[in-house]
Amino acid sequence: MPSHTSSEDSSVSFHGWATTGTSELKQWSYHPRPLAPNDVEIEITHCGICGTDVHTMTGGWGPLQYGPCIPGHEIIGKVVAKGAQNKLEIGDVVGVGAMCDACGNCDQCDQGRDQLCSKRAYTYNDIYRDERGGKTYGGYADRVRANGEYVFKIPPQISAAEAALLCAGVTTFAPLRRFGAGPGKRVGVIGIGGLGHLAIQWARAMDCDEVVAMSSSGNKREEAKKLGATKFVNDDKNQDWGKLLSLVRPRGTVVILAVPEAPLPIPAYELLSHEVSLAGSAIGSADAVREMLQFAADKNVRPWIERMSMDDPNAAIKHLMEGRPRYRIVMVQ
Amino acid sequence: MPSHTSSEDSSVSFHGWATTGTSELKQWSYHPRPLAPNDVEIEITHCGICGTDVHTMTGGWGPLQYGPCIPGHEIIGKVVAKGAQNKLEIGDVVGVGAMCDACGNCDQCDQGRDQLCSKRAYTYNDIYRDERGGKTYGGYADRVRANGEYVFKIPPQISAAEAALLCAGVTTFAPLRRFGAGPGKRVGVIGIGGLGHLAIQWARAMDCDEVVAMSSSGNKREEAKKLGATKFVNDDKNQDWGKLLSLVRPRGTVVILAVPEAPLPIPAYELLSHEVSLAGSAIGSADAVREMLQFAADKNVRPWIERMSMDDPNAAIKHLMEGRPRYRIVMVQ
Repeated sequence: MPSHTSSEDSSVSFHGWATTGTSELKQWSYHPRPLAPNDVEIEITHCGICGTDVHTMTGGWGPLQYGPCIPGHEIIGKVVAKGAQNKLEIGDVVGVGAMCDACGNCDQCDQGRDQLCSKRAYTYNDIYRDERGGKTYGGYADRVRANGEYVFKIPPQISAAEAALLCAGVTTFAPLRRFGAGPGKRVGVIGIGGLGHLAIQWARAMDCDEVVAMSSSGNKREEAKKLGATKFVNDDKNQDWGKLLSLVRPRGTVVILAVPEAPLPIPAYELLSHEVSLAGSAIGSADAVREMLQFAADKNVRPWIERMSMDDPNAAIKHLMEGRPRYRIVMVQ
Repeated sequence: MPSHTSSEDSSVSFHGWATTGTSELKQWSYHPRPLAPNDVEIEITHCGICGTDVHTMTGGWGPLQYGPCIPGHEIIGKVVAKGAQNKLEIGDVVGVGAMCDACGNCDQCDQGRDQLCSKRAYTYNDIYRDERGGKTYGGYADRVRANGEYVFKIPPQISAAEAALLCAGVTTFAPLRRFGAGPGKRVGVIGIGGLGHLAIQWARAMDCDEVVAMSSSGNKREEAKKLGATKFVNDDKNQDWGKLLSLVRPRGTVVILAVPEAPLPIPAYELLSHEVSLAGSAIGSADAVREMLQFAADKNVRPWIERMSMDDPNAAIKHLMEGRPRYRIVMVQ
């Protein structure tokens, strides 16, 4: 039985698949937090699988910090309960991405950069930093509760399964907006996978002059073109940072979206000689998620997905670890 | 005798100190390029010593590319000859920094970013990329010729010796301007040496709220305060990039001004978690040098210098390699 603390609603149990620090998931249950006035309870219908899930499960970024962990932060489902102040309707199709909470009134939140809030909570393997406390659990489960600020209504043009892009989508969308992707600009996308295949589509939909797809898999050439790449470069030296930095224009920006487990060996000369910047970008704000969903609806950007069953998330994880998805696995309840 | 090509004025020899790829300098002569209409010939009175000189001499950035090399790119002297179109006066006190030429009409030059011009020529150990060709030689010498665009008149408030900050000065001044140093901002300066002691002064003179000096030498505390630091941190872990990146505010920028000979081990997590950028900055444009000189004159920013004789540049290089200058060596003719 799950443990019981004051931050848990002992009348309710949610059932999901948890890791205790290996790549194997086992069935597990927990008591969620009580529903606060703006909270939403979601009956989960779909959950995307993200590389983060694997890094977390296998301890690649360090051991689990808060006990058993239910992964999953591309959650789609239906509103089944909500606090009195929340304006969603019961039955609305909604999603939760990589964040489920922030303080809402610090400098960063005030500037619409709530992804940088020091009290942010990630959707799983994290704790709430508000006065109520408690742990966060993700979407490989039947239900989830979250702060309504981080529960996004899905535009009707987007199917529930294809809406499971709330992490991969905003992680690629937000930096393209921040660094001014659009007419006159050239964007290179290194690595055509769960994130890259969305980045190509966003850049093209933002009317960038050139969208260069770079991949170590030559067999992705045709797919890259279908996604909107104007050029495809088959290159197995995607880890040569000197070369990558030399590809951007003077004063250009190389945005890092992934967190490799080892430090990046960055040659200073390449940064200096063309005054290039290396910028970190972390998911995106709640505003960016809302903007992204509307942009995807308007411009017909969709993840390319493979549906698998949430009855066997271990099979889905195995498929991902083998590098086989084209390009995003969505588990269906 | 020096060799003679069409890009050399065989009627004239300049005499200096050259390296052939070791840290030892020997007397050597060369024929300069003929004076073009906007060129200026300078009788050198002072030349600062820059860390670049040592990296170049010892091959730390790679072997010399163009034969014997006269270092020196913080050159001060008097105009003794000039082309018909140049507007300086004979006798003017002028300086030449790290660049001596650029094309003047590419995208980068048009935007006032001539330091990024693909036809830029560095003041020594480089070649001219214009139609006249030829090699560049620096300021450890009796004379030098340069494109008048890169010959800067020294404001009368600044002594000739203290004007020898044309590389160290603009290298620190330009990025502070580019990234908006001023009221409301906090600047950290890592390493208090030839560059750092100027960075502290600029940041203070730009009215930044806080100027934090970080040094592995605890005995620089008092000097850092005199230079304008509001805080001093004695820390011998200045190479811990994870820690350094964690010190800046969310969306802050860490500017790299030096080119260590090995790649920088940058932990991606620290870039992402606070959306920090790592930006390369290379010297500065001609406009930035002019702005810097006027700012130094107006705000009383000066390098702290030790005068040594240009009769024995090897002694000055040795002093620098021992890390002893406080903070800048200027050789006097």
